[in-house]
Amino acid sequence: MLLSFTAMQETQYKYLDKVDSPDDLKRLRAGELTQYCAELRRFIIAQLSSNPGHLGSSLGVVELTVALHYVLNTPDDKLVWDVGHQAYAHKIITGRRDRFCTNRKLGGLSGFPKMGESLYDAFGAGHSSTSISAALGIAIASARRGEKREVVAVIGDGALTGGLAFEGLNNAGASNANLLVVLNDNRMSIDPNVGALKEYLLNITTSKRYNQAKHHTWTRLERFPKLRRTIQKMGNALKGGFLQQSNLFESLNFRYFGPVDGHNVEQLTRVLKDLKEIPGPKLLHVLTVKGKGYQPAEEHQRTWHAPGLFNPETGERLGHTRNGAPPRYQDVFGETLLELARRDERIVGITPAMPTGCSLSIMMEQMPERCFDVGIAEGHAVTFSAGLAAQGLVPYCNIYSSFMQRAYDNVIHDVALQGLHVVMCLDRAGLVGEDGATHHGVFDLAAMLPVPGLTIASPMDEVELRNLMFTAASGEGPFVIRYPRGNGVTRDWRRPMETLPLGRGRILREGKDLALLTIGPAGNDAAWAAEQAAGEGISVLHADLRFAKPLDEGLLHRIGREFRRVITVEDGVVNGGVGAAVLAFMNRHGYPCRITMLGVEDRFVAHGTVAQLKEMCGYDAPGILRAIREAGAERLTSPIDGRVTEQADTADGPDTDCAVYPFRNGIKSPGQERNETKQD
Amino acid sequence: MLLSFTAMQETQYKYLDKVDSPDDLKRLRAGELTQYCAELRRFIIAQLSSNPGHLGSSLGVVELTVALHYVLNTPDDKLVWDVGHQAYAHKIITGRRDRFCTNRKLGGLSGFPKMGESLYDAFGAGHSSTSISAALGIAIASARRGEKREVVAVIGDGALTGGLAFEGLNNAGASNANLLVVLNDNRMSIDPNVGALKEYLLNITTSKRYNQAKHHTWTRLERFPKLRRTIQKMGNALKGGFLQQSNLFESLNFRYFGPVDGHNVEQLTRVLKDLKEIPGPKLLHVLTVKGKGYQPAEEHQRTWHAPGLFNPETGERLGHTRNGAPPRYQDVFGETLLELARRDERIVGITPAMPTGCSLSIMMEQMPERCFDVGIAEGHAVTFSAGLAAQGLVPYCNIYSSFMQRAYDNVIHDVALQGLHVVMCLDRAGLVGEDGATHHGVFDLAAMLPVPGLTIASPMDEVELRNLMFTAASGEGPFVIRYPRGNGVTRDWRRPMETLPLGRGRILREGKDLALLTIGPAGNDAAWAAEQAAGEGISVLHADLRFAKPLDEGLLHRIGREFRRVITVEDGVVNGGVGAAVLAFMNRHGYPCRITMLGVEDRFVAHGTVAQLKEMCGYDAPGILRAIREAGAERLTSPIDGRVTEQADTADGPDTDCAVYPFRNGIKSPGQERNETKQD
Repeated sequence: MLLSFTAMQETQYKYLDKVDSPDDLKRLRAGELTQYCAELRRFIIAQLSSNPGHLGSSLGVVELTVALHYVLNTPDDKLVWDVGHQAYAHKIITGRRDRFCTNRKLGGLSGFPKMGESLYDAFGAGHSSTSISAALGIAIASARRGEKREVVAVIGDGALTGGLAFEGLNNAGASNANLLVVLNDNRMSIDPNVGALKEYLLNITTSKRYNQAKHHTWTRLERFPKLRRTIQKMGNALKGGFLQQSNLFESLNFRYFGPVDGHNVEQLTRVLKDLKEIPGPKLLHVLTVKGKGYQPAEEHQRTWHAPGLFNPETGERLGHTRNGAPPRYQDVFGETLLELARRDERIVGITPAMPTGCSLSIMMEQMPERCFDVGIAEGHAVTFSAGLAAQGLVPYCNIYSSFMQRAYDNVIHDVALQGLHVVMCLDRAGLVGEDGATHHGVFDLAAMLPVPGLTIASPMDEVELRNLMFTAASGEGPFVIRYPRGNGVTRDWRRPMETLPLGRGRILREGKDLALLTIGPAGNDAAWAAEQAAGEGISVLHADLRFAKPLDEGLLHRIGREFRRVITVEDGVVNGGVGAAVLAFMNRHGYPCRITMLGVEDRFVAHGTVAQLKEMCGYDAPGILRAIREAGAERLTSPIDGRVTEQADTADGPDTDCAVYPFRNGIKSPGQERNETKQD
Repeated sequence: MLLSFTAMQETQYKYLDKVDSPDDLKRLRAGELTQYCAELRRFIIAQLSSNPGHLGSSLGVVELTVALHYVLNTPDDKLVWDVGHQAYAHKIITGRRDRFCTNRKLGGLSGFPKMGESLYDAFGAGHSSTSISAALGIAIASARRGEKREVVAVIGDGALTGGLAFEGLNNAGASNANLLVVLNDNRMSIDPNVGALKEYLLNITTSKRYNQAKHHTWTRLERFPKLRRTIQKMGNALKGGFLQQSNLFESLNFRYFGPVDGHNVEQLTRVLKDLKEIPGPKLLHVLTVKGKGYQPAEEHQRTWHAPGLFNPETGERLGHTRNGAPPRYQDVFGETLLELARRDERIVGITPAMPTGCSLSIMMEQMPERCFDVGIAEGHAVTFSAGLAAQGLVPYCNIYSSFMQRAYDNVIHDVALQGLHVVMCLDRAGLVGEDGATHHGVFDLAAMLPVPGLTIASPMDEVELRNLMFTAASGEGPFVIRYPRGNGVTRDWRRPMETLPLGRGRILREGKDLALLTIGPAGNDAAWAAEQAAGEGISVLHADLRFAKPLDEGLLHRIGREFRRVITVEDGVVNGGVGAAVLAFMNRHGYPCRITMLGVEDRFVAHGTVAQLKEMCGYDAPGILRAIREAGAERLTSPIDGRVTEQADTADGPDTDCAVYPFRNGIKSPGQERNETKQD
């Protein structure tokens, strides 16, 4: 495969160019589907080599996707993809081949199914485990409206560990909904799948009993289609007896079929045709190989989940050796946690199926017994961490910001209410770029600020991340640390850690015209903007708040007394965010500050590079500079500039004794993120 | 039972008074436990007849609780109760008998396990399905710390339908944690349990195969304890062969034992002792009867889940016939939905296991095919609703506000991002009273306001609730309606419905000194306070915002131009709430208003009556009046009163044309809720 890629590239596609819709696909003869699949796979590899995306899972479902569109009458029949990053073949078949080169780019195709993008995208996705619930809703609504259609949910074995999927199975199994769940079993999430269910599926697949069963049902009976159909229609009771096999899904009242080879497209089409005749909830277990058909991706499934740019010929990944570049925040997290764990026996690491994504893998390699990958199960990850903390351990539970939305109640009900010492590390906080609206971690601050008892912090750079992690270890209650996707700004970040004072910010630059308050790495862009503004004669005080909660009241009292114009910058939604919390403080104490809040306004942000999106949202470095200029101009014309009214409540406003830190890190130039192309 | 209650009451307790700890309990001989259970049950019935609480589930686990404390070495061994409202016997055994008369009262015992209340409460609860995750964390932490102890999670069959429980099972099954899950199977949530799992459990229990199995294992083997133990220790493989029975839990690598009779305390103690010797994850299936031992509660399990006051002698429920009183909001929801559904074929109702609690039961009786009880599965309820909406139905998905925290990601990812027309009705919004911190629905507004595309409204009274529900039906995108627990304020609420203009409030009283902006039924208390203030010479404009999002910009521009002092009132957290949103609006447009925000400050609120808690939080009617007086006094001394600076951005501030509605409803006197004692 590897050596012949160029040769294949140069071959004219025989079938691919003819298929711009499922109708075109249906014009192929069954015998031509294998060749079409090969071309589709080749096209995906070629496209993704130059325009990065989710390669492994997309290659794994090429045959399944072709078989589904070949057999189903889409878009009237409804196909719901779980997670959705495996839906590239689906997009290419359904009229988006020509635009596929825009995949994940600003203004281009979404990397996930999106209802607004195509009639063939029956339901959007991005997060895991939603497909059964959504498909059940679609099936029941269709039945109520008298619309006869097939409804199919395609869900991976990893996504099946999410509790939402189980809730869907439990509800669907008790309904008479005409629903097919295709279990795409490749034994992987991004990392290898974990949990009892995985072992169970493996048992089904490898046991002698299964092989007998497979022989009996899918091989022998294939020669007797009527008999097979009869047996199928007689349902689980007989089938159970026939196969001598217990089955988890049958316990939940699904008819179970399989496992079948997910890379035999002709067999898949035959099986799917048969299943169309069987009413009620049913599950087809399909075995696939992540990265199928591209040797490097098959051999290193984790790396090739989303490999970035690569040479399709050699399998060499490109653009990932950035000599001397600052590290990724996730790696600073991973290395620092290992360092902390070596010093403190109480520390353990928890991840819901993201050891590689969050770099908990670094500690996992050294201390596997102190790391817990709990599967795609964010709610459980948090409540499990609460249980660990209740017995005196100090869990660092790492969850991507947007996935933490899944565990909101667990944070409130199990951690915060009980004041348990769980350190919640939110990776991928803020705009994440190409993964788009489902993945931007922009709601975390607004959602968590109202929860009593949480300490919420965000580091401006790698050293601060280390210090916050260090500080959190010796704390008492729940501690949230949010930090972004991608690279930091500091090369020599391996410094001795120090305890940061809780709820205290730091002034990075003194000034007198206006105050610029930032949280997290947005502070680096702000620092650049403040410096530019100084050159233009606008004197800006810049403070890194460090803590969103508790806010640095001493610092804010000083700001309230000295400034009328304040700008806040955060990599998250403005509604209910840190700027709004600062405003509430000023209001409570009667400081008549007017605050320009930079961040994500009240809309969902699509996909693009982080730099493009921040520019669009107006809080990249030039955007911040623009806001400074506008506020500065207003300052010159405002009649109440600098005057504090008697309303101001300064009684409990001590002089701030915030240290004025030298601005230690290189100031990042705007648009530095433009180079980043990798995704999760 | 019924007739002899008085006689029993008068009997001196023979054993109950002797047991103030599990150590005391262990001094009883096994043969005395049955009698102790009878006395414990009698005590619970007597207590709850005069101090309402969760009766049915507590009566159902009397024997189980006694057996657990008899066999376990609590509090060193850890006992985690799921949901926790069944833990009354547990509280009474563990030293809280004397204080049990304070259960659920302000300053008294919590109605749920609470870590801060007792060492015996290993983990707090209130919401469903957390116990396996928490217990697993406790078990693993104990093992890591070298502490040898038993860890037991007691979870109901209803709670087991929550996806979080499945996530816990999947993780625990793959661990070697020493964890016992006791499945308390009474086939009920508050309403009868639903879903495929329920049917599966019923099959186990009633099938001939089960009866054989039961005979073989628990009856025959009881005479051969060593053999039984040997077989148990040989694990599932042999057991599966022996029993000729497939098992869902064994699929997840739990050793499954049972079902056993949950009301035979002596057998339970023997079984639990045996299970202590078996390492690893194991599940004991216990069959119980909700309300066991009290005939009315056994016969009407739904009603007697939490019956309120009752006569223990006659089984008559007291205080529930309030002739001519305003209806409960939930009943207005239920009746109105039925009315709407009769007019509009697209409307369907969804509830996660709360048909009675939210009164969807009213529509369910008339149109069962258009109502869906999906089990305790809030996330699924929302994503399932999104699927229904994607096919053109209009789902009204009713979830208690605090339970909606479970579905936060589903609201964002599946509903809001896709702009689907799902009407989310949040019952029990605001402080709920006796159920306390886990159940107060105070975070919904703050959590949802930052989510783009949501319309969020709250009715001030029953007529408004009807109108909002009517308005939501003809809308397009996602619509949130939050309303409180308990009774409304209007007797003649069955009026023709009308469409309310989206994002428009209504002025209830004109005034010139300060503006009082309210959302939801807090407006009734505010109206009383405004009237009182008028008598004191403070002229208050009172507006009911109706919509938290979008805010009524016309109205707010007028307020911003005309007022410097504003008071907002909401039944929810102040941080990130509606008051904060109003403040952000004023800031954005440069209106120098100072806002006093009344609502729940940044702390968890414990249990008590709603009236007590609102008083404590300072936003009951007298609290609002106090805030008006303070703001009024400040108005007289403030130098900038009434003057709008040039900063104010009035360009896009049109004259408001808000209708001034007559204040139609009776003004509720402060403390009206004091009469309410029922709980959920």
